[in-house]
Amino acid sequence: MSAAPTPGLFLSLEGPEGAGKSTQLARLAAQLQAQGRAHTVTREPGGTPLGLRVREVLLDPALTIDPLPEFLLYSASRAQLVRNVIRPALERGEVVICDRYADSSLAYQGGGRGLNASLLRQITQEATGGLTPHLTVLLDLDPAVGLERAARRGQPDRLEQADLDFHRRVRQTFLALAAADPDRFLVLDATQDQETLADLIWQAVTRRS
Amino acid sequence: MSAAPTPGLFLSLEGPEGAGKSTQLARLAAQLQAQGRAHTVTREPGGTPLGLRVREVLLDPALTIDPLPEFLLYSASRAQLVRNVIRPALERGEVVICDRYADSSLAYQGGGRGLNASLLRQITQEATGGLTPHLTVLLDLDPAVGLERAARRGQPDRLEQADLDFHRRVRQTFLALAAADPDRFLVLDATQDQETLADLIWQAVTRRS
Repeated sequence: MSAAPTPGLFLSLEGPEGAGKSTQLARLAAQLQAQGRAHTVTREPGGTPLGLRVREVLLDPALTIDPLPEFLLYSASRAQLVRNVIRPALERGEVVICDRYADSSLAYQGGGRGLNASLLRQITQEATGGLTPHLTVLLDLDPAVGLERAARRGQPDRLEQADLDFHRRVRQTFLALAAADPDRFLVLDATQDQETLADLIWQAVTRRS
Repeated sequence: MSAAPTPGLFLSLEGPEGAGKSTQLARLAAQLQAQGRAHTVTREPGGTPLGLRVREVLLDPALTIDPLPEFLLYSASRAQLVRNVIRPALERGEVVICDRYADSSLAYQGGGRGLNASLLRQITQEATGGLTPHLTVLLDLDPAVGLERAARRGQPDRLEQADLDFHRRVRQTFLALAAADPDRFLVLDATQDQETLADLIWQAVTRRS
Protein backbone atom coordinates (compact mmCIF):
# COMPACT_ATOMS: atom_id res chain seq x y z
CA MET A 1 0.00 0.00 0.00
CA SER A 2 1.16 3.51 -0.72
CA ALA A 3 -0.55 6.80 -0.11
CA ALA A 4 -2.37 8.23 -3.11
CA PRO A 5 -0.75 11.53 -4.09
CA THR A 6 -2.57 14.36 -2.36
CA PRO A 7 -1.46 17.87 -1.42
CA GLY A 8 -2.04 17.35 2.32
CA LEU A 9 -0.12 15.53 5.03
CA PHE A 10 -1.62 12.47 6.72
CA LEU A 11 -0.38 11.65 10.23
CA SER A 12 -1.54 8.81 12.49
CA LEU A 13 -0.86 8.21 16.17
CA GLU A 14 -0.68 4.63 17.36
CA GLY A 15 0.05 2.84 20.58
CA PRO A 16 -1.69 1.25 23.55
CA GLU A 17 -4.23 2.82 25.86
CA GLY A 18 -2.45 5.02 28.37
CA ALA A 19 0.53 5.85 26.13
CA GLY A 20 -0.44 9.52 25.88
CA LYS A 21 -1.78 9.63 22.32
CA SER A 22 -4.51 12.13 23.20
CA THR A 23 -2.08 14.48 24.92
CA GLN A 24 0.37 14.44 22.03
CA LEU A 25 -2.42 14.80 19.51
CA ALA A 26 -3.69 17.92 21.29
CA ARG A 27 -0.19 19.41 21.47
CA LEU A 28 0.43 18.74 17.80
CA ALA A 29 -2.89 20.30 16.84
CA ALA A 30 -2.08 23.34 18.97
CA GLN A 31 1.30 23.76 17.25
CA LEU A 32 -0.30 23.53 13.81
CA GLN A 33 -2.90 26.05 14.94
CA ALA A 34 -0.20 28.42 16.19
CA GLN A 35 1.44 28.25 12.77
CA GLY A 36 -1.85 28.90 10.99
CA ARG A 37 -1.66 25.50 9.26
CA ALA A 38 -5.10 24.14 8.34
CA HIS A 39 -5.64 20.76 9.97
CA THR A 40 -8.28 18.17 10.75
CA VAL A 41 -8.18 16.04 13.87
CA THR A 42 -10.10 12.79 13.85
CA ARG A 43 -10.07 9.34 15.37
CA GLU A 44 -10.90 5.68 14.93
CA PRO A 45 -13.36 4.27 15.41
CA GLY A 46 -15.46 7.38 14.95
CA GLY A 47 -14.97 10.60 13.05
CA THR A 48 -18.26 10.41 11.12
CA PRO A 49 -21.87 9.97 12.26
CA LEU A 50 -21.63 6.33 11.16
CA GLY A 51 -18.26 5.92 12.88
CA LEU A 52 -19.61 7.29 16.15
CA ARG A 53 -22.42 4.75 16.12
CA VAL A 54 -19.98 1.95 15.32
CA ARG A 55 -17.71 3.19 18.11
CA GLU A 56 -20.54 2.89 20.64
CA VAL A 57 -21.13 -0.68 19.52
CA LEU A 58 -17.45 -1.66 19.60
CA LEU A 59 -16.84 -0.23 23.07
CA ASP A 60 -20.01 -1.64 24.65
CA PRO A 61 -18.77 -4.23 27.18
CA ALA A 62 -22.21 -5.94 27.20
CA LEU A 63 -21.89 -7.15 23.58
CA THR A 64 -20.27 -10.38 22.39
CA ILE A 65 -18.18 -9.48 19.34
CA ASP A 66 -15.91 -12.13 17.81
CA PRO A 67 -12.58 -11.09 16.24
CA LEU A 68 -13.70 -11.09 12.59
CA PRO A 69 -16.93 -9.11 13.08
CA GLU A 70 -14.94 -6.75 15.32
CA PHE A 71 -12.48 -6.15 12.49
CA LEU A 72 -15.29 -5.70 9.96
CA LEU A 73 -16.89 -3.04 12.18
CA TYR A 74 -13.60 -1.15 12.49
CA SER A 75 -13.20 -1.43 8.72
CA ALA A 76 -16.69 -0.08 8.09
CA SER A 77 -15.95 2.95 10.28
CA ARG A 78 -12.56 3.40 8.57
CA ALA A 79 -13.99 3.19 5.06
CA GLN A 80 -16.54 5.91 5.79
CA LEU A 81 -13.93 8.07 7.55
CA VAL A 82 -11.51 7.92 4.61
CA ARG A 83 -14.27 8.81 2.14
CA ASN A 84 -15.98 11.59 4.10
CA VAL A 85 -13.20 13.13 6.19
CA ILE A 86 -9.59 12.14 5.52
CA ARG A 87 -9.42 12.24 1.73
CA PRO A 88 -11.41 15.48 1.39
CA ALA A 89 -9.18 17.19 3.99
CA LEU A 90 -6.01 15.99 2.28
CA GLU A 91 -7.35 17.20 -1.04
CA ARG A 92 -7.87 20.62 0.53
CA GLY A 93 -4.17 20.50 1.44
CA GLU A 94 -4.71 20.11 5.18
CA VAL A 95 -2.74 18.20 7.76
CA VAL A 96 -4.88 15.29 8.97
CA ILE A 97 -4.09 13.82 12.39
CA CYS A 98 -5.83 10.53 13.09
CA ASP A 99 -5.91 8.97 16.56
CA ARG A 100 -5.47 5.31 15.47
CA TYR A 101 -5.75 4.05 11.91
CA ALA A 102 -5.26 0.78 10.01
CA ASP A 103 -2.14 -0.22 11.95
CA SER A 104 -4.34 -0.60 15.03
CA SER A 105 -6.39 -3.27 13.25
CA LEU A 106 -3.26 -5.15 12.25
CA ALA A 107 -2.01 -4.94 15.84
CA TYR A 108 -5.23 -5.60 17.80
CA GLN A 109 -7.28 -7.86 15.52
CA GLY A 110 -4.24 -9.41 13.82
CA GLY A 111 -1.48 -9.76 16.42
CA GLY A 112 -3.79 -9.55 19.42
CA ARG A 113 -6.77 -11.64 18.36
CA GLY A 114 -4.99 -13.82 15.83
CA LEU A 115 -6.80 -12.98 12.59
CA ASN A 116 -4.86 -13.68 9.40
CA ALA A 117 -2.71 -10.65 8.54
CA SER A 118 -3.05 -10.98 4.78
CA LEU A 119 -6.85 -11.05 5.03
CA LEU A 120 -6.73 -7.91 7.19
CA ARG A 121 -4.40 -6.16 4.77
CA GLN A 122 -6.58 -7.01 1.78
CA ILE A 123 -9.81 -5.77 3.35
CA THR A 124 -7.98 -2.67 4.65
CA GLN A 125 -6.72 -1.98 1.13
CA GLU A 126 -10.34 -2.00 -0.08
CA ALA A 127 -11.66 0.01 2.87
CA THR A 128 -9.04 2.75 2.57
CA GLY A 129 -8.43 2.68 -1.17
CA GLY A 130 -4.78 2.22 -0.24
CA LEU A 131 -4.54 5.50 1.68
CA THR A 132 -1.60 5.18 4.10
CA PRO A 133 -0.27 7.85 6.49
CA HIS A 134 2.82 9.81 5.50
CA LEU A 135 3.96 9.57 9.12
CA THR A 136 2.84 7.21 11.88
CA VAL A 137 3.96 8.02 15.41
CA LEU A 138 4.04 4.89 17.56
CA LEU A 139 4.02 5.69 21.27
CA ASP A 140 5.55 2.49 22.54
CA LEU A 141 4.89 1.42 26.13
CA ASP A 142 5.14 -1.71 28.22
CA PRO A 143 1.53 -2.97 28.44
CA ALA A 144 1.67 -3.31 32.20
CA VAL A 145 2.45 0.41 32.51
CA GLY A 146 -0.18 1.40 29.94
CA LEU A 147 -2.96 -0.57 31.59
CA GLU A 148 -2.15 0.96 34.96
CA ARG A 149 -2.29 4.47 33.46
CA ALA A 150 -5.61 3.76 31.71
CA ALA A 151 -7.16 2.31 34.88
CA ARG A 152 -6.33 5.50 36.77
CA ARG A 153 -8.42 7.46 34.26
CA GLY A 154 -11.62 5.61 35.14
CA GLN A 155 -13.69 2.60 34.15
CA PRO A 156 -11.83 0.25 31.82
CA ASP A 157 -13.58 -0.40 28.47
CA ARG A 158 -13.77 -3.75 26.69
CA LEU A 159 -10.28 -3.51 25.18
CA GLU A 160 -8.71 -2.56 28.48
CA GLN A 161 -10.20 -5.61 30.20
CA ALA A 162 -8.43 -8.02 27.86
CA ASP A 163 -5.48 -9.78 29.40
CA LEU A 164 -1.89 -8.70 29.50
CA ASP A 165 -0.73 -11.39 27.03
CA PHE A 166 -3.08 -9.91 24.46
CA HIS A 167 -1.54 -6.49 24.95
CA ARG A 168 1.96 -7.91 24.70
CA ARG A 169 1.09 -9.44 21.31
CA VAL A 170 -0.36 -6.09 20.23
CA ARG A 171 2.86 -4.30 21.21
CA GLN A 172 5.05 -6.80 19.36
CA THR A 173 2.91 -6.41 16.24
CA PHE A 174 3.16 -2.61 16.36
CA LEU A 175 6.94 -2.88 16.70
CA ALA A 176 7.13 -5.37 13.81
CA LEU A 177 5.03 -3.07 11.60
CA ALA A 178 7.36 -0.18 12.45
CA ALA A 179 10.48 -2.25 11.74
CA ALA A 180 9.07 -3.22 8.33
CA ASP A 181 8.34 0.39 7.34
CA PRO A 182 10.95 2.60 9.03
CA ASP A 183 10.42 5.55 6.67
CA ARG A 184 6.80 5.88 7.73
CA PHE A 185 7.09 5.07 11.45
CA LEU A 186 8.53 7.16 14.26
CA VAL A 187 8.79 4.90 17.31
CA LEU A 188 9.01 6.79 20.60
CA ASP A 189 9.45 5.52 24.13
CA ALA A 190 6.23 6.78 25.70
CA THR A 191 7.73 6.93 29.19
CA GLN A 192 9.65 10.06 28.20
CA ASP A 193 8.26 13.38 29.43
CA GLN A 194 5.55 15.04 27.37
CA GLU A 195 7.72 17.98 26.29
CA THR A 196 10.39 15.70 24.87
CA LEU A 197 7.85 13.59 23.02
CA ALA A 198 6.11 16.66 21.61
CA ASP A 199 9.45 18.04 20.34
CA LEU A 200 10.38 14.75 18.66
CA ILE A 201 6.97 14.50 16.99
CA TRP A 202 7.08 18.11 15.82
CA GLN A 203 10.53 17.59 14.29
CA ALA A 204 9.27 14.56 12.36
CA VAL A 205 6.20 16.46 11.14
CA THR A 206 8.17 19.50 9.97
CA ARG A 207 10.60 17.25 8.08
CA ARG A 208 7.62 15.95 6.09
CA SER A 209 5.78 19.25 5.55
CA MET B 1 -18.66 -22.21 -1.33
CA SER B 2 -20.36 -25.29 0.02
CA ALA B 3 -22.14 -25.83 3.30
CA ALA B 4 -20.01 -27.54 5.92
CA PRO B 5 -21.56 -30.90 6.76
CA THR B 6 -23.91 -30.49 9.70
CA PRO B 7 -26.90 -32.57 10.82
CA GLY B 8 -29.38 -29.67 10.48
CA LEU B 9 -31.06 -28.04 7.51
CA PHE B 10 -30.28 -24.43 6.62
CA LEU B 11 -32.94 -22.49 4.70
CA SER B 12 -32.83 -18.86 3.60
CA LEU B 13 -35.60 -16.66 2.24
CA GLU B 14 -34.64 -13.96 -0.22
CA GLY B 15 -36.43 -11.38 -2.29
CA PRO B 16 -37.37 -7.71 -2.28
CA GLU B 17 -39.29 -5.82 0.36
CA GLY B 18 -42.98 -6.55 -0.01
CA ALA B 19 -42.56 -10.02 -1.56
CA GLY B 20 -44.08 -11.74 1.46
CA LYS B 21 -40.96 -13.22 3.04
CA SER B 22 -42.20 -12.63 6.59
CA THR B 23 -45.54 -14.29 5.88
CA GLN B 24 -43.96 -17.35 4.32
CA LEU B 25 -41.37 -17.56 7.04
CA ALA B 26 -44.08 -17.59 9.71
CA ARG B 27 -46.07 -20.27 7.84
CA LEU B 28 -43.01 -22.43 7.41
CA ALA B 29 -42.12 -22.10 11.09
CA ALA B 30 -45.70 -23.04 12.03
CA GLN B 31 -45.56 -26.16 9.85
CA LEU B 32 -42.26 -27.23 11.40
CA GLN B 33 -43.75 -26.58 14.84
CA ALA B 34 -46.83 -28.68 13.99
CA GLN B 35 -44.53 -31.56 13.06
CA GLY B 36 -42.52 -31.19 16.24
CA ARG B 37 -39.36 -30.38 14.24
CA ALA B 38 -36.89 -28.27 16.24
CA HIS B 39 -36.17 -25.06 14.39
CA THR B 40 -34.60 -21.64 14.80
CA VAL B 41 -35.91 -18.56 13.03
CA THR B 42 -33.56 -15.65 12.57
CA ARG B 43 -32.88 -12.75 10.25
CA GLU B 44 -30.29 -10.44 8.75
CA PRO B 45 -29.18 -8.00 9.74
CA GLY B 46 -29.89 -8.93 13.34
CA GLY B 47 -30.29 -12.21 15.14
CA THR B 48 -27.71 -11.46 17.85
CA PRO B 49 -27.30 -8.54 20.27
CA LEU B 50 -24.52 -7.24 18.00
CA GLY B 51 -26.64 -7.81 14.91
CA LEU B 52 -29.57 -5.88 16.37
CA ARG B 53 -27.31 -2.90 17.04
CA VAL B 54 -25.88 -3.11 13.53
CA ARG B 55 -29.41 -3.37 12.14
CA GLU B 56 -30.41 -0.11 13.86
CA VAL B 57 -27.40 1.60 12.29
CA LEU B 58 -28.02 0.22 8.79
CA LEU B 59 -31.70 1.15 8.74
CA ASP B 60 -31.24 4.66 10.16
CA PRO B 61 -32.18 7.02 7.32
CA ALA B 62 -30.24 9.89 8.96
CA LEU B 63 -26.84 8.23 8.44
CA THR B 64 -24.61 8.48 5.37
CA ILE B 65 -23.33 4.97 4.66
CA ASP B 66 -21.36 4.32 1.47
CA PRO B 67 -21.67 0.96 -0.32
CA LEU B 68 -18.48 -0.64 1.03
CA PRO B 69 -19.00 0.27 4.71
CA GLU B 70 -22.62 -0.84 4.30
CA PHE B 71 -21.45 -4.23 3.09
CA LEU B 72 -18.89 -4.49 5.90
CA LEU B 73 -21.61 -3.81 8.47
CA TYR B 74 -23.85 -6.51 7.00
CA SER B 75 -20.85 -8.86 6.99
CA ALA B 76 -20.08 -8.12 10.64
CA SER B 77 -23.66 -8.94 11.62
CA ARG B 78 -23.56 -12.09 9.45
CA ALA B 79 -20.28 -13.31 10.89
CA GLN B 80 -21.58 -13.03 14.45
CA LEU B 81 -24.90 -14.65 13.50
CA VAL B 82 -23.22 -17.66 11.89
CA ARG B 83 -20.96 -18.16 14.89
CA ASN B 84 -23.52 -17.66 17.69
CA VAL B 85 -26.82 -18.79 16.17
CA ILE B 86 -26.82 -20.60 12.82
CA ARG B 87 -23.93 -23.06 13.25
CA PRO B 88 -24.86 -24.04 16.82
CA ALA B 89 -28.49 -24.68 15.78
CA LEU B 90 -27.41 -26.76 12.77
CA GLU B 91 -25.06 -28.74 14.98
CA ARG B 92 -28.02 -29.48 17.27
CA GLY B 93 -29.78 -30.88 14.18
CA GLU B 94 -32.32 -28.09 13.89
CA VAL B 95 -33.88 -26.50 10.84
CA VAL B 96 -32.62 -22.90 10.61
CA ILE B 97 -34.73 -20.42 8.67
CA CYS B 98 -32.98 -17.13 7.94
CA ASP B 99 -34.83 -14.09 6.61
CA ARG B 100 -32.11 -12.89 4.16
CA TYR B 101 -28.53 -14.15 4.09
CA ALA B 102 -25.43 -13.68 1.96
CA ASP B 103 -27.32 -13.63 -1.36
CA SER B 104 -28.88 -10.35 -0.24
CA SER B 105 -25.43 -8.76 -0.02
CA LEU B 106 -24.54 -9.98 -3.50
CA ALA B 107 -27.84 -8.63 -4.82
CA TYR B 108 -28.07 -5.31 -2.92
CA GLN B 109 -24.46 -4.25 -2.42
CA GLY B 110 -23.17 -6.05 -5.52
CA GLY B 111 -25.82 -5.78 -8.23
CA GLY B 112 -27.62 -2.82 -6.68
CA ARG B 113 -24.76 -0.63 -5.47
CA GLY B 114 -22.12 -1.89 -7.87
CA LEU B 115 -19.48 -3.33 -5.53
CA ASN B 116 -17.16 -5.92 -7.05
CA ALA B 117 -18.78 -9.37 -6.79
CA SER B 118 -15.55 -11.27 -6.25
CA LEU B 119 -14.59 -9.00 -3.33
CA LEU B 120 -18.03 -9.56 -1.79
CA ARG B 121 -17.76 -13.33 -2.25
CA GLN B 122 -14.34 -13.45 -0.69
CA ILE B 123 -15.28 -11.45 2.41
CA THR B 124 -18.51 -13.46 2.68
CA GLN B 125 -16.51 -16.68 2.56
CA GLU B 126 -14.48 -15.41 5.53
CA ALA B 127 -17.51 -14.08 7.42
CA THR B 128 -19.54 -17.29 7.07
CA GLY B 129 -16.73 -19.84 7.04
CA GLY B 130 -18.30 -21.01 3.76
CA LEU B 131 -21.66 -21.87 5.33
CA THR B 132 -24.25 -21.81 2.53
CA PRO B 133 -27.97 -22.64 2.79
CA HIS B 134 -29.18 -26.06 1.68
CA LEU B 135 -32.22 -24.35 0.19
CA THR B 136 -32.77 -20.69 -0.72
CA VAL B 137 -36.32 -19.63 -1.54
CA LEU B 138 -36.33 -16.57 -3.79
CA LEU B 139 -39.67 -14.77 -3.76
CA ASP B 140 -39.39 -12.98 -7.07
CA LEU B 141 -41.39 -9.85 -7.67
CA ASP B 142 -41.43 -6.90 -10.04
CA PRO B 143 -39.82 -4.07 -8.00
CA ALA B 144 -42.63 -1.66 -8.80
CA VAL B 145 -45.15 -4.04 -7.20
CA GLY B 146 -42.89 -4.74 -4.20
CA LEU B 147 -42.29 -1.09 -3.41
CA GLU B 148 -46.00 -0.36 -3.57
CA ARG B 149 -46.70 -3.22 -1.13
CA ALA B 150 -43.96 -2.05 1.25
CA ALA B 151 -45.18 1.55 1.17
CA ARG B 152 -48.66 0.43 2.21
CA ARG B 153 -47.15 -1.06 5.36
CA GLY B 154 -45.91 2.29 6.61
CA GLN B 155 -42.87 4.55 6.57
CA PRO B 156 -40.30 3.44 3.98
CA ASP B 157 -36.83 2.74 5.38
CA ARG B 158 -33.55 3.71 3.76
CA LEU B 159 -33.49 0.77 1.36
CA GLU B 160 -37.05 1.33 0.25
CA GLN B 161 -36.34 4.95 -0.65
CA ALA B 162 -33.71 3.97 -3.20
CA ASP B 163 -34.81 4.30 -6.77
CA LEU B 164 -36.54 1.75 -8.94
CA ASP B 165 -33.49 1.18 -11.15
CA PHE B 166 -31.59 0.06 -8.10
CA HIS B 167 -34.28 -2.47 -7.27
CA ARG B 168 -34.34 -3.72 -10.87
CA ARG B 169 -30.60 -4.41 -10.67
CA VAL B 170 -31.15 -6.20 -7.37
CA ARG B 171 -33.84 -8.39 -8.92
CA GLN B 172 -31.67 -9.28 -11.91
CA THR B 173 -28.80 -10.23 -9.60
CA PHE B 174 -31.03 -12.48 -7.50
CA LEU B 175 -32.27 -14.19 -10.67
CA ALA B 176 -28.72 -14.60 -11.96
CA LEU B 177 -27.61 -16.12 -8.64
CA ALA B 178 -30.53 -18.55 -8.84
CA ALA B 179 -29.77 -19.49 -12.43
CA ALA B 180 -26.16 -20.21 -11.48
CA ASP B 181 -27.13 -22.50 -8.59
CA PRO B 182 -30.44 -24.20 -9.51
CA ASP B 183 -30.02 -27.05 -7.00
CA ARG B 184 -29.97 -24.60 -4.10
CA PHE B 185 -32.53 -22.04 -5.29
CA LEU B 186 -36.29 -22.33 -5.50
CA VAL B 187 -37.54 -19.32 -7.47
CA LEU B 188 -41.20 -18.52 -6.93
CA ASP B 189 -43.43 -15.90 -8.50
CA ALA B 190 -44.39 -13.92 -5.41
CA THR B 191 -47.66 -12.71 -6.93
CA GLN B 192 -49.14 -16.18 -6.41
CA ASP B 193 -51.51 -16.58 -3.47
CA GLN B 194 -50.01 -17.31 -0.05
CA GLU B 195 -51.41 -20.87 0.17
CA THR B 196 -49.83 -21.87 -3.13
CA LEU B 197 -46.49 -20.35 -2.17
CA ALA B 198 -46.53 -22.05 1.22
CA ASP B 199 -47.27 -25.44 -0.40
CA LEU B 200 -44.44 -25.07 -2.91
CA ILE B 201 -41.99 -24.06 -0.18
CA TRP B 202 -43.07 -26.91 2.08
CA GLN B 203 -42.59 -29.44 -0.75
CA ALA B 204 -39.07 -28.16 -1.35
CA VAL B 205 -38.25 -28.32 2.36
CA THR B 206 -39.55 -31.84 2.82
CA ARG B 207 -37.56 -33.05 -0.21
CA ARG B 208 -34.41 -31.86 1.58
CA SER B 209 -35.25 -33.09 5.08
